[in-house]
Amino acid sequence: MRLATVRTPDGTRAVRLDGDQLVDVGADDVGALLGRPDWQQAAAAATSAGGAATYPVEVADFAPVVPSPAKVVCVGHNYTNHIKEMGRELPSYPTLFTKFADSLIGAHDDIAKPAETDALDWEVELVVVIGREVRRASQAQAASAIAGFTIMNDISVRDWQFRTVEWTQGKAWDATTPVGPYLVTPDELPGGLRPALKVSTTVDGQLMQRDDSSTLLFDPVTLVQYVSTLTRLRPGDLIATGTPAGVGHARDPKVYLAPGQTVTTAIDGLGACTNRIVEEA
Amino acid sequence: MRLATVRTPDGTRAVRLDGDQLVDVGADDVGALLGRPDWQQAAAAATSAGGAATYPVEVADFAPVVPSPAKVVCVGHNYTNHIKEMGRELPSYPTLFTKFADSLIGAHDDIAKPAETDALDWEVELVVVIGREVRRASQAQAASAIAGFTIMNDISVRDWQFRTVEWTQGKAWDATTPVGPYLVTPDELPGGLRPALKVSTTVDGQLMQRDDSSTLLFDPVTLVQYVSTLTRLRPGDLIATGTPAGVGHARDPKVYLAPGQTVTTAIDGLGACTNRIVEEA
Repeated sequence: MRLATVRTPDGTRAVRLDGDQLVDVGADDVGALLGRPDWQQAAAAATSAGGAATYPVEVADFAPVVPSPAKVVCVGHNYTNHIKEMGRELPSYPTLFTKFADSLIGAHDDIAKPAETDALDWEVELVVVIGREVRRASQAQAASAIAGFTIMNDISVRDWQFRTVEWTQGKAWDATTPVGPYLVTPDELPGGLRPALKVSTTVDGQLMQRDDSSTLLFDPVTLVQYVSTLTRLRPGDLIATGTPAGVGHARDPKVYLAPGQTVTTAIDGLGACTNRIVEEA
Repeated sequence: MRLATVRTPDGTRAVRLDGDQLVDVGADDVGALLGRPDWQQAAAAATSAGGAATYPVEVADFAPVVPSPAKVVCVGHNYTNHIKEMGRELPSYPTLFTKFADSLIGAHDDIAKPAETDALDWEVELVVVIGREVRRASQAQAASAIAGFTIMNDISVRDWQFRTVEWTQGKAWDATTPVGPYLVTPDELPGGLRPALKVSTTVDGQLMQRDDSSTLLFDPVTLVQYVSTLTRLRPGDLIATGTPAGVGHARDPKVYLAPGQTVTTAIDGLGACTNRIVEEA
């Protein structure tokens, strides 16, 4: 099942992809849908024959797949190849930081480069979407708390990120971070809860990142367990699982995103976020 | 004016301290109150003679002064004396990290030590409470966006905090961080928007931290400007301005909070958070 949140003239709506149509599943957005204990049945049952509104997918205007998550937790240093390449030891614990709901934009929205930086960088990430409330989850509880997966481009303002030892000020800029287009349930993905998917970033068609999500050091179930140790996770919360090698800041010379460019972060089986960089209005 | 959020049998209520009474100001909590453009007039106008409910202050059960802020931004390395004492250079930029709304508890609530740590530490902090929406605030806009000040004990789980370079996992444990009891408007404080107040922490009556908030390197107005550069601040959002020397983790030998102890974080003119440490249920 592929779910999305789309913008309509009457506000956002949660939809299920059905061929070339998006079928309204009766909730304002995917976050609200996931708040229902029967979300899977409700989402699967909606049909145009049953009276549900439909929207053609070609003209869909995607909102962030969850527009207002209470928690957006991001993981650093999690692709084994990238860690080894950097000459680092494999870490014993995941590195965690956060974004705000305000950081998020839709999968095809423009990214406005803040006037305060010329060091805007990409990071393709597989994202876990929480579908059930958990705290101090066992492995089984963590597995059943995963509603599915989506894509984030964890856009980073590198000069601000490295002003201090804490990354927040480089990560939490408003309206910079595409997330979507679809939440895809694990049954549709090779590897299921530990998806084995090619992840990539291209900038104006040039390949910048390429790896496989099966090489994640801390897999999705482990991350849900770990994060839920300290804080309760609720339906719609997001955990971005980290990025592989190939970010612009680590290149020699460094490369950053500039207005006029288009960045595509893709994960096989999930789709892609494709975003134009523009000057801030 | 001193405002608080108290728990009543009918849910939380925003109140104004008036002698030994708390006067209901007609909102569910201080966050909701601050969302009204006329919050100052509304809060000042409520009287028992005018029909407002009152609650005796001696038995008040304080909720977090803002129970559900969308953003809780915390600042590290901000007391000049503490930075110099540690032999560090004065930083050019504030260090920012975040907590969740779920991290917060009331000013007199028990702090349940998580079973996963024996390194629970205190940090008294002056907190800015936002009263008006701002983005990329000028100095004047930042000043007028400050509703007032309160106290946070930025409880830190040190072993988790230092597992990785990012502090989030030591800072964002659910229900660990007292904030309150009162939001005090700047007109009641010496120094106004740059309060000159004694801040202190005592553990079972023993003095652990003592400094003056006038020695903050980045003052409240500067912090509102800085944070609002990257993200929109809205009524009820909190900025905790950092802690002075004397935390348990920096002592030799290190000292941590244990069940049975009581920690008091006090700021003259604002009051105190007084919290018993208990075993987690």
